[in-house]
Amino acid sequence: MAQMADETGLDKNPANFIPLTPLSHLARARDVFPDRIASVYHDRRHSYRELHARCTQLGSALAAKGIKPGDVVSTLCPNIPAIAEAHFGVPLCGAVLNTINTRLDADTIAYIFAHAEAKIVLVDSQFLPAAQEAIALMDSTPPEIIEVADPLAGFPASGEYTEYEDFIATGDADFKWHLPDDEWDAISLNYTSGTTGRPKGVVCHHRGAYLMTMGTALSWEIGLYPKYLTIVPLFHCNGWNHTWMMPSLGGQITFCRDMTAKAIFAAIAAEKITHFGGAPIVLNTLINAKPEDRAAFDHTVNVITAGAPPSPATIKGAEALGFRVMQVYGLTETYGHVTECVEPDDWATLPAEERYAQMARVGVQYPMMEDIDVVDQDSRKPVPRDGKTIGEIVIRGNAVMKGYYKNPKATAEAFEGGAFRSGDIAVRHPDGYIQITDRMKDIIISGGENISSVEVENTLMSHPAVSLCAVVARPDEQWGETPCAFIELKDGATAPTPEDIIAHTRAHLAGFKCPKTVIYQELPKTSTGKIQKFELRKIAKAL
Amino acid sequence: MAQMADETGLDKNPANFIPLTPLSHLARARDVFPDRIASVYHDRRHSYRELHARCTQLGSALAAKGIKPGDVVSTLCPNIPAIAEAHFGVPLCGAVLNTINTRLDADTIAYIFAHAEAKIVLVDSQFLPAAQEAIALMDSTPPEIIEVADPLAGFPASGEYTEYEDFIATGDADFKWHLPDDEWDAISLNYTSGTTGRPKGVVCHHRGAYLMTMGTALSWEIGLYPKYLTIVPLFHCNGWNHTWMMPSLGGQITFCRDMTAKAIFAAIAAEKITHFGGAPIVLNTLINAKPEDRAAFDHTVNVITAGAPPSPATIKGAEALGFRVMQVYGLTETYGHVTECVEPDDWATLPAEERYAQMARVGVQYPMMEDIDVVDQDSRKPVPRDGKTIGEIVIRGNAVMKGYYKNPKATAEAFEGGAFRSGDIAVRHPDGYIQITDRMKDIIISGGENISSVEVENTLMSHPAVSLCAVVARPDEQWGETPCAFIELKDGATAPTPEDIIAHTRAHLAGFKCPKTVIYQELPKTSTGKIQKFELRKIAKAL
Repeated sequence: MAQMADETGLDKNPANFIPLTPLSHLARARDVFPDRIASVYHDRRHSYRELHARCTQLGSALAAKGIKPGDVVSTLCPNIPAIAEAHFGVPLCGAVLNTINTRLDADTIAYIFAHAEAKIVLVDSQFLPAAQEAIALMDSTPPEIIEVADPLAGFPASGEYTEYEDFIATGDADFKWHLPDDEWDAISLNYTSGTTGRPKGVVCHHRGAYLMTMGTALSWEIGLYPKYLTIVPLFHCNGWNHTWMMPSLGGQITFCRDMTAKAIFAAIAAEKITHFGGAPIVLNTLINAKPEDRAAFDHTVNVITAGAPPSPATIKGAEALGFRVMQVYGLTETYGHVTECVEPDDWATLPAEERYAQMARVGVQYPMMEDIDVVDQDSRKPVPRDGKTIGEIVIRGNAVMKGYYKNPKATAEAFEGGAFRSGDIAVRHPDGYIQITDRMKDIIISGGENISSVEVENTLMSHPAVSLCAVVARPDEQWGETPCAFIELKDGATAPTPEDIIAHTRAHLAGFKCPKTVIYQELPKTSTGKIQKFELRKIAKAL
Repeated sequence: MAQMADETGLDKNPANFIPLTPLSHLARARDVFPDRIASVYHDRRHSYRELHARCTQLGSALAAKGIKPGDVVSTLCPNIPAIAEAHFGVPLCGAVLNTINTRLDADTIAYIFAHAEAKIVLVDSQFLPAAQEAIALMDSTPPEIIEVADPLAGFPASGEYTEYEDFIATGDADFKWHLPDDEWDAISLNYTSGTTGRPKGVVCHHRGAYLMTMGTALSWEIGLYPKYLTIVPLFHCNGWNHTWMMPSLGGQITFCRDMTAKAIFAAIAAEKITHFGGAPIVLNTLINAKPEDRAAFDHTVNVITAGAPPSPATIKGAEALGFRVMQVYGLTETYGHVTECVEPDDWATLPAEERYAQMARVGVQYPMMEDIDVVDQDSRKPVPRDGKTIGEIVIRGNAVMKGYYKNPKATAEAFEGGAFRSGDIAVRHPDGYIQITDRMKDIIISGGENISSVEVENTLMSHPAVSLCAVVARPDEQWGETPCAFIELKDGATAPTPEDIIAHTRAHLAGFKCPKTVIYQELPKTSTGKIQKFELRKIAKAL
């Protein structure tokens, strides 16, 4: 509808309207920063000119394999250059990138392959067995495997499949990119553990990914030429979209496959890393590293951390090492972080403990977001900003998913009321800062990975002796949380040993999802029979 | 058209799609930076909470006056807080902001009022006579005047009109904003001197303004909490959109109505200004300031400069003062700057003169732009990157205007070939950096203001003794360029004195547009009779 009195000739045209996409950043970087180093892995360094060529070749090779716009191309890779190249190479032929968590069990991987209708999967040699096992479990057409060998890390090519370098060598570095026809087109499909047993496929659009890069660069005050270290897995919310952001800044990504303190310290010192993102557990690992694993550096490293509030000890220890820490918050459904605990300059004068308490909050919305609030779970009205009244975090903004793939029911539920319902419980302080008081009730976060308690419960329920069960998070110094199973036995059944129970789950689930603690007791229930997980969490916490 | 195999439920909804608009930055700033100072003018300081309230009241008061979405609200104001408030207050009631150059003559102002169908105009008391004279010239319905008094600058209220503070006091600070229904809706209408006599109305959209703010913040490496000084007039391309950007960064704008070296130095020192934009002439004014007009400061001031390449002497002098200078390039049609002379870190080691030569180029595209190139004027193909072959700068990106208001013919010409044709002549260097070699051929830039030579020529032609004329730029140390008129007299006519000619133009044109030099001679022409301005420029240059 026309807004002004006369809009003749004021339509969109190819000069003034270009679908937003982070692919534009790579095209620009080849022009603006052609000789700057874009990617570092061991002694392999690629300039932006080279990265552009490699990504273009990947897209060209995929198209030659018959990949059409809208097709899904998966990866089963750790943080190695190929997965970053796939972030550009897959969408630039119009396809949708599906990065699969390498820690998943074969059954779940098979589910994802089938649900996503993945046509091709790039598999790191280490994860070939998982991919092969998953494919063996499939009824539908499996994806074709392209193997990504990493001999430097001890994973040489198996020889069974086309190897990644050979594959992209077949591509044309002058291949014409298929930029999105519409910025609402999907760029990625990320499967996330929800409260239901099967993972849901979060569909992200080019527009949101582009705006994530712009808002993050602005608010994290990155500046040009950052030296970024991959700690957040690129298969996790596309590494919070940082890979897509780097070309806009002429930044360098250093890949860290080995997530030990020693490797991280070595990278920070050798590459003068300026920025990374990671769960607080990563900071704790660095703080508690053995002297021989440390490496000296004298610059500031900017860290954004998410998944759990960093403890005062973590902040203190990290700052002593030379890290500047900020907590952020988000979900796979929001492309990663959408709130940030921006530090006003006057916090610097607060007593340390008070400042740490401020920093333990998830803060305020990023500039690419429209409105993030905490609302009463019944009335859906904003809770008072009193730091006490709890409500659910709800999110509106352009970095929110299109919805769940092939799941309009879950999509409608998530967007009920006109905002994305995070399921996370929080309070809002008088200064507007949000603080999470309770995790989304059924999710356990272990080592930065989401575990659906319902999925674990479903597996436990398949044990012949189990009558009823509930799985909650047990606080854990190393992992943040681990799954703790409470079980009611069937009448007359003999209690299996905890080891038996754990072995039973291990046969069906990825290792990190298996309970680390098993407790037999009657489960507390409401008058309507609903299990009171809140009570169980108190017990698990007191263990 | 669906991209993926199944897109059921993946549509846009109010949670995941919000029209892009810089108004969102102000809404966020009230939440994130409520107590930070947003605006400083003399001893008047407004926090973001206050700025948000004042802008909302302005929008509310305009709506109560009958302003509807799509209506045009004009300003005739220098750099004072009211014009910045209008940048938010006008669009937040759905209206379109039309900031008029205060240096224009009454006839042109009348033309703009009528062409824009302006309903209301905010007029600084100093410019009341111009507004009144313009309104007296109008045949159509004139805009209603709201007077913006500035007693601190010696311009108290006339008492004839509603005063701005009284006007916004009638507004409701809880007024519900009318955010754009579509991000393609117009946010501003800026009249620019083109090659034709009458100014053209450049229609800018909310989407482009938002993306300008994000791209500028990212690439200028601004960081949070900048202290910005208004030097570029806010009536000029909306001050390069910097006013819209500041709330995203919690930045402070200091208003500088008095553009003397003394006032600028005083503001830099008192407010610890970190950023401003302005033509090289401003830097020259500061470099050449008298000792008593200077004020000491010991921080770095980041300056982007446009309109002409800064000379080596300018860069050297500015750097000695503590300024970090970067040249940018753009047009009103592109919301301001769309290329930037990004300084790679290795320029720091170049010999000074070589570094200055690099910095005299307009550089490469900003990250919100898609493609800026130099193309051959005939073949429309990119020129070789040899630093020698000239062509026209053509621009594609999301910070490009919708088009010219009520001028589909000029719009179609500007976008012919699928990119915006800048009319500026440039070469492209091997490193991709663009260097302008010739100004858009008919435009004279004097003191940062565009002067249409055709407009001046049309006025000269109205003199009874003038047969033919051409106006070109004459290089000028103080103003950059001044208009130089070449005249052929009518047969038998007596040559008027240059003073006569200048007085004739002054009766019709703003003072800055009047020729400073008048030369009588036969005009050089091509075989087809076209005047060879190129030859005249050589003569003017040699004067």
